[in-house]
Amino acid sequence: MNQIINEAAVCLSEVRAKAPLVHNITNYVTVNDCANALLALGASPIMADDIGEVSEIVALSQALVINMGTLNQRTINSMIAAGKAANQLGIPVIFDPVGAGASGLRNNTAREIVTQVKLSVVRGNISEISCLAGLSSSTKGVDAGESDAKKDGAVIAKSLAQRLGCTVAITGAVDYISDGARLAKITNGHEMLGKVTGTGCMTTSLVGATCGVTNDYYIGAVAGVAAMGLAGEIGFVVAGAKGTGSFRVALLDALSKMEAEQFKRSAKIDEE
Amino acid sequence: MNQIINEAAVCLSEVRAKAPLVHNITNYVTVNDCANALLALGASPIMADDIGEVSEIVALSQALVINMGTLNQRTINSMIAAGKAANQLGIPVIFDPVGAGASGLRNNTAREIVTQVKLSVVRGNISEISCLAGLSSSTKGVDAGESDAKKDGAVIAKSLAQRLGCTVAITGAVDYISDGARLAKITNGHEMLGKVTGTGCMTTSLVGATCGVTNDYYIGAVAGVAAMGLAGEIGFVVAGAKGTGSFRVALLDALSKMEAEQFKRSAKIDEE
Amino acid sequence: MNQIINEAAVCLSEVRAKAPLVHNITNYVTVNDCANALLALGASPIMADDIGEVSEIVALSQALVINMGTLNQRTINSMIAAGKAANQLGIPVIFDPVGAGASGLRNNTAREIVTQVKLSVVRGNISEISCLAGLSSSTKGVDAGESDAKKDGAVIAKSLAQRLGCTVAITGAVDYISDGARLAKITNGHEMLGKVTGTGCMTTSLVGATCGVTNDYYIGAVAGVAAMGLAGEIGFVVAGAKGTGSFRVALLDALSKMEAEQFKRSAKIDEE
Repeated sequence: MNQIINEAAVCLSEVRAKAPLVHNITNYVTVNDCANALLALGASPIMADDIGEVSEIVALSQALVINMGTLNQRTINSMIAAGKAANQLGIPVIFDPVGAGASGLRNNTAREIVTQVKLSVVRGNISEISCLAGLSSSTKGVDAGESDAKKDGAVIAKSLAQRLGCTVAITGAVDYISDGARLAKITNGHEMLGKVTGTGCMTTSLVGATCGVTNDYYIGAVAGVAAMGLAGEIGFVVAGAKGTGSFRVALLDALSKMEAEQFKRSAKIDEE
Repeated sequence: MNQIINEAAVCLSEVRAKAPLVHNITNYVTVNDCANALLALGASPIMADDIGEVSEIVALSQALVINMGTLNQRTINSMIAAGKAANQLGIPVIFDPVGAGASGLRNNTAREIVTQVKLSVVRGNISEISCLAGLSSSTKGVDAGESDAKKDGAVIAKSLAQRLGCTVAITGAVDYISDGARLAKITNGHEMLGKVTGTGCMTTSLVGATCGVTNDYYIGAVAGVAAMGLAGEIGFVVAGAKGTGSFRVALLDALSKMEAEQFKRSAKIDEE
Repeated sequence: MNQIINEAAVCLSEVRAKAPLVHNITNYVTVNDCANALLALGASPIMADDIGEVSEIVALSQALVINMGTLNQRTINSMIAAGKAANQLGIPVIFDPVGAGASGLRNNTAREIVTQVKLSVVRGNISEISCLAGLSSSTKGVDAGESDAKKDGAVIAKSLAQRLGCTVAITGAVDYISDGARLAKITNGHEMLGKVTGTGCMTTSLVGATCGVTNDYYIGAVAGVAAMGLAGEIGFVVAGAKGTGSFRVALLDALSKMEAEQFKRSAKIDEE
């Protein structure tokens, strides 16, 4: 077993042991899934988006997750205020630029967040991360476009990580995670994850949980992304044949039963 | 097999083949269900409700779904702006007047949308559609009232369709769909659909998917409504005896496994 | 069988018989769960939070549930307006002070609601209720903190009930419900309820349903809280071993199948 799998497994154990409080400013489409995924992995979710309280809520938390899935001017202000508060307190900030590339508002918001908030991890699909990286990117809604799949995720993740000075996670059929120096490639997962809404958002929230218990956010990102991929594999075996409703239930089951030993046996993570 | 079932089946196949992007401005109660239903049928959902981006998001999409379930002034403005943008681009607009009749705000909003936006399909229960039609209607929250059930759905659907110049779908124990000339009656479905929140909203979103792949919105409406009814039947057989939680999972399973051949065998659609 | 179990069972039967309309102004994290729980128990949910319609929606309803889980200034104003309208009409108001103690905004809002609205039932965990009671309380997000568990729920519930002149329900491993004179202790439930988001919110909404069919809100609170606890027990037996996803489905199943006779056999309620 390679070293990074071991470190990721330790991180997942720490989530169960410490039950980090993860503050999510997120979209109303998948917020319930994010809360349940966090509880399943052993973390404790809190959702709060009013600018009158986000700084206080961040101060209680071990991580802040900003997800711009259904952004609006009110919540954009809250995201930035919360991000700045987290920065001051040294609390990790995880950013999910949902649908970056789909509108000027999303692009401007993503740019503003990247500029004003020191991020710990950015997680998105190849479209979204490419957009953030300023590459030309064809966007099809909030899902990854076909042509994006041909781009080299490893190169994009590493170069954006260097530019932003944080960890970048590109999730897809293969996940690429880099902190600018290290690069991990994860091949867990199942394509059915793309047929259920919120699996990307849930992954980002899980990375909030893992980064809430480690100072090495690259390891945190690897642990959270791999946990979700593994849950997808298990969920498919258990219930994929029945359809996406049963798969979605089995996915949450798998997260809630996930333990370090199983993770060590089944995680497929390689480092460059 | 009658001709309309064949056309509806083709429409459903096209959804899987083309994966239309469906922009939903909808309520926060059932938005997750709508996203999962769209993915299950093979479409791609996007939810965006800020007035600063809805026109851009519509322009990426093959259909716009407006659902006023948890309307507020901010989102009402976005609904109308998005609707107008869709009209300019020739993108179909599907409207779900959730709870029409329950408050002045809902009535005014429904009236404003009907006046300012050229709709392709309106889908609601008999209470909501009767309210839209200006008929007296006793409203019990967002569900159909008892006395409404005695009204003649076929007559109301047809006359409102003529007045609005669009397709009107009244769903209930029997579904009536008319474009003012044609009239379809669908007897798929199961009463347990009324015991799970969001089945109406999901139906409307599915009609967004089907109308995103056809120019005949009457056929699109028939396909989307019948698909949901059939999923309800299958869901009940698979899991109805266990309760509404399992039924809800089986409903999504059925949508995700639904294929044209099965639909042709099981759809119960008659045209006048 | 003791008398209170009988009265609670009657109350649950009345929910199925009368299908009370329950108006929820609640958070976007668990709103879908609340709607499904209400439908499962036999009630009819309506969610509406715009100040332009909440008074009209309340007037159609048999109960109002105010849940401050994801409060913001817009919805706070709606909560208070709706609460006052309910008071004028004699409609019971159920309040869930989610996360009271976690921020000044939450504390101020809770205080304002308690001051401006005559409440029928307040339901929360020991942290939240202790905060309301003005006791020192360590808050860990929206879940109950460890140290709070050692406080005497019975004493806090009873004294706050006397102070507010309403029924207070503290839910946890043991639930304490008091109207200031009577005190019920419920030992139904399962710890897995704490690993699924929304079980507290759902309980509050269920209390909305039960209080919508009785004038004795203490009995209503006992019935709603015990129903959720019992559903948790059944859900765990049916599906707990599979994980939290399956448990969550089984919980809804159990609510949807719950009948008075079963409740009478299985409810564990003692009165002081």
